[in-house]
Amino acid sequence: EVFKAHNIGYFFYNGGGDSADTCFKVSQLSEQMGYPIQAIHVPKTVDNDLPITDCCPGFGSVAKYIAVSTLEASYDVRSMAKTSTKVFVLEVMGRHAGWIAAAGGLVEDHGIPVVILFPEIEFDQKKFLARVDKLVKEHGYCTVVVSEGCHYPDGKFLAEQGTRDAFGHAQLGGAAPVVANMIKDALGHKFHWAVADYLQRAARHIASKTDVKQAYELGKKAVELAIKGHNSVMPTVDRLSDAPYKYKIGMADLKDVANVEKFMPRDFITKDGFGITPKCKRYLTPLIQGEDYPKYKDGLPVYVTLKNVAVAKKLAAFKL
Amino acid sequence: EVFKAHNIGYFFYNGGGDSADTCFKVSQLSEQMGYPIQAIHVPKTVDNDLPITDCCPGFGSVAKYIAVSTLEASYDVRSMAKTSTKVFVLEVMGRHAGWIAAAGGLVEDHGIPVVILFPEIEFDQKKFLARVDKLVKEHGYCTVVVSEGCHYPDGKFLAEQGTRDAFGHAQLGGAAPVVANMIKDALGHKFHWAVADYLQRAARHIASKTDVKQAYELGKKAVELAIKGHNSVMPTVDRLSDAPYKYKIGMADLKDVANVEKFMPRDFITKDGFGITPKCKRYLTPLIQGEDYPKYKDGLPVYVTLKNVAVAKKLAAFKL
Repeated sequence: EVFKAHNIGYFFYNGGGDSADTCFKVSQLSEQMGYPIQAIHVPKTVDNDLPITDCCPGFGSVAKYIAVSTLEASYDVRSMAKTSTKVFVLEVMGRHAGWIAAAGGLVEDHGIPVVILFPEIEFDQKKFLARVDKLVKEHGYCTVVVSEGCHYPDGKFLAEQGTRDAFGHAQLGGAAPVVANMIKDALGHKFHWAVADYLQRAARHIASKTDVKQAYELGKKAVELAIKGHNSVMPTVDRLSDAPYKYKIGMADLKDVANVEKFMPRDFITKDGFGITPKCKRYLTPLIQGEDYPKYKDGLPVYVTLKNVAVAKKLAAFKL
Repeated sequence: EVFKAHNIGYFFYNGGGDSADTCFKVSQLSEQMGYPIQAIHVPKTVDNDLPITDCCPGFGSVAKYIAVSTLEASYDVRSMAKTSTKVFVLEVMGRHAGWIAAAGGLVEDHGIPVVILFPEIEFDQKKFLARVDKLVKEHGYCTVVVSEGCHYPDGKFLAEQGTRDAFGHAQLGGAAPVVANMIKDALGHKFHWAVADYLQRAARHIASKTDVKQAYELGKKAVELAIKGHNSVMPTVDRLSDAPYKYKIGMADLKDVANVEKFMPRDFITKDGFGITPKCKRYLTPLIQGEDYPKYKDGLPVYVTLKNVAVAKKLAAFKL
């Protein structure tokens, strides 16, 4: 009714899996209610877990941030490993899908020994500790990238491992300190840990040029699809080749997108479950290419704040 | 004896307070042993806690990283505050000195409501929660920057607040989750927290141009001081004016530097203890100016790895 009152015919919704589902439902509702709306979903999620599209805007930049940060912190550890910290643990986002964690694996080709803990691979403490111990013995140090969604075979998250705060409440979040303390207890190595949280997904200052370019292209395509009369669809990135990276902008039906999560394929993860394969590297590498720096003023980046002025209401107040 | 065998006359030591002390001791030892060594300390510490010099190489870049990251994450929270996360907590380094935490206060002039917890100010839970509650009521959200060195009046660190892991060990590190849970328990706000740890001090990708310039100037000055015959000294940045930022490279005696920690002056911190004053902003702002981007290859920055080839040993093996 709000759409009708304001004579709105296009509905663009920007987001991940849940948003795609909402957008799909809006298009279904509009049919049921007999008021035609063209609902177009514009993909965007750092988790990179939408199906059909090659990747989701936001992911390439997070992947770049994680790869760059893992590289830098690992060099820091390496420089001190002889006398101090031997293990660095970085916790990253991506509750069910390990795409962001996978980006940490890109530093391997820069000589960094790295262990990745994916949500897709059930956590095996014994194997994990053996792997860390082997790398520290060989290289003098190692880096662990742990997904917040990493869990035991029974589905319990590492971050929920019975840790209690001073008030007796279960402490929320924090797979990194759990993993770090596990290593300290079993192997005795001095550690440091970081939790990237919002820093990773808000890090526009180190955005991938490829990612920013695709975000604009998909937004433009969404408008074009609407003008051409499409409904209940999502523009997609269709990869044509890895190197050089070639793609075209395509289209998917929302019924095939809504509520479908795309996880890391098993052949993107090494056999032992702790690393990424060359196939995965070929997938990730083009997505972090190029630097799209923001403008700076007085040392800080200049970001736009939308005014978001609402139009005047045309309907009487109502409750949902 | 090693210096003597290799005919070494200059000793350059790069670091913070402890290193300055070591360098000072080397110069004293050389006098006692009758073998002349010119010991020059080259300042470098992200903690910014060396006395006499205006600032320490490394700090300007960390300050820039923290200011940029706090700004970006705060905008992220702001965009979702109506329906989701209302408080973001970022933990930063600087065990005894709050310089790094102070850098988070620079976002205040960009409209971000921010509360800073300094190591220099004894933690008052009641006042802190009241401040957070006030900001969330006024702005809909707020950001908390907590120094790892933040502590109660009895000296106990927030990060040591009796938190135990599944094995019953005191959990190390993590002032951010403690603060975040405290807010959740008292005020009920949904939160997110991040611990920057090594990410902040290794973040060469967002280095301050001013900082990098000073690092080279101080290194060059150290060599010049040695050639001119100085001993037991440290080159310094002597600030001449804030805006425009003007400074000259000076010199301090190591006896005045070794083991002296420079804390945040009380007039750099607001009366309530939760923010930075205009005077502090005038101090910090010039240090984060300019972007000194590294070169990139295949999406990742290119950093130099020294070969560190040792010269042939001239002395027989010995134990210390």
